[in-house]
Amino acid sequence: MEREHYSKQFDTELNEIRQRLLEMGGKVEVMINDSLKALVERDSDLAERVIASDHEINRLEMEIDERCLEVLARRQPAARDLRFITLALKIVTDLERIGDQCRNIGKRTLELNEEPPLKPYIDMPRMAQWSGVMVKEALDAFVQGDDQLAYKVCRDDQFVDDLNDQIQRELLTFMIADPTSISRAMKINQISKCLERIADHATNVAEMVIFMIKGKDIRHMSI
Amino acid sequence: MEREHYSKQFDTELNEIRQRLLEMGGKVEVMINDSLKALVERDSDLAERVIASDHEINRLEMEIDERCLEVLARRQPAARDLRFITLALKIVTDLERIGDQCRNIGKRTLELNEEPPLKPYIDMPRMAQWSGVMVKEALDAFVQGDDQLAYKVCRDDQFVDDLNDQIQRELLTFMIADPTSISRAMKINQISKCLERIADHATNVAEMVIFMIKGKDIRHMSI
Repeated sequence: MEREHYSKQFDTELNEIRQRLLEMGGKVEVMINDSLKALVERDSDLAERVIASDHEINRLEMEIDERCLEVLARRQPAARDLRFITLALKIVTDLERIGDQCRNIGKRTLELNEEPPLKPYIDMPRMAQWSGVMVKEALDAFVQGDDQLAYKVCRDDQFVDDLNDQIQRELLTFMIADPTSISRAMKINQISKCLERIADHATNVAEMVIFMIKGKDIRHMSI
Repeated sequence: MEREHYSKQFDTELNEIRQRLLEMGGKVEVMINDSLKALVERDSDLAERVIASDHEINRLEMEIDERCLEVLARRQPAARDLRFITLALKIVTDLERIGDQCRNIGKRTLELNEEPPLKPYIDMPRMAQWSGVMVKEALDAFVQGDDQLAYKVCRDDQFVDDLNDQIQRELLTFMIADPTSISRAMKINQISKCLERIADHATNVAEMVIFMIKGKDIRHMSI
């Protein structure tokens, strides 16, 4: 009975870590969507709110880190549970850095809003939506232990990379045609790269999840 | 005696993780220096070697990860040792991503070598040297538990950021003056951003080290 009680408490603690990670992931998704909404609608207030919300993400990172360390110290888990917690520690770092990227998008948006618009955004919102879904699916794959979903995230990264290349090429033609557009085009280019990095973080998470489930490291293999 | 023997073996294992991390850090430093040497001297062979050496870094990451998990499972460390190992797990991820940045520099260098040079590089080698020292010092701070050295790394990041800003502004003037320079200038801009990200990874490591030593999280405070 003692052992069963212990094990139930441990399960509760692992579930709590799972829930906190999902909560953090949900907030990061909102940041991604809001940062792009602020860009497309030239909404500086929203951009400011995105920048401010990064603090919340940083706080969550520290809390989940501490929680993982507590559980590791108290429960001394083995095998699968150990792998789960050490992976959670790595994943929060990726989520926190996604928050940093959203804050960067917010900052560039504030700068862009002080100048006339260069062009309507078409590929960028698709890229943001795609990246947000990748973050969500990578976390779902983690908490559900779903390797097929994780593989999907890895494959989807190529599409975001392709969109980023397309945006960069398009911006290049703007810059060549009109030197006064260069400064704005470079800021838009930076935002595109932020989104590409967000998708990279999601892919990193997915690759680590596959390693957790399959014991197979695909981080440095082509799949 | 049994306990002492156990403890000695554990110390040996922790030391081995320390040594492996330093070894990985040393290889990453060489990559940073070589990638810039390849850029400055337009040496495509060296750039190819940098790209190829990323595999070695990836292998080291997987090995150290596995070693940390083994020690966690077998020794079930508490307090300081636990914090040390979980931090090692996070640090290898940063080192691996520094390797990715060097590989990116190598790829851009190969592209740049197919076109005439834009200008001599002055700030970029300084930025690379600075970033390499930051990586080394961040790791030294980790293995020696030296918080003062870690604080220094955090402060030094500003200098690399300033150099990156300066390079970006300079490239902008090139692009405005001569549209045929834009494609090359953007590649150089990407390399500059790679170096900035390398310094960011070193700073991330240093911030985590300060947290390990002081129990104080400065990741999200201004120091």
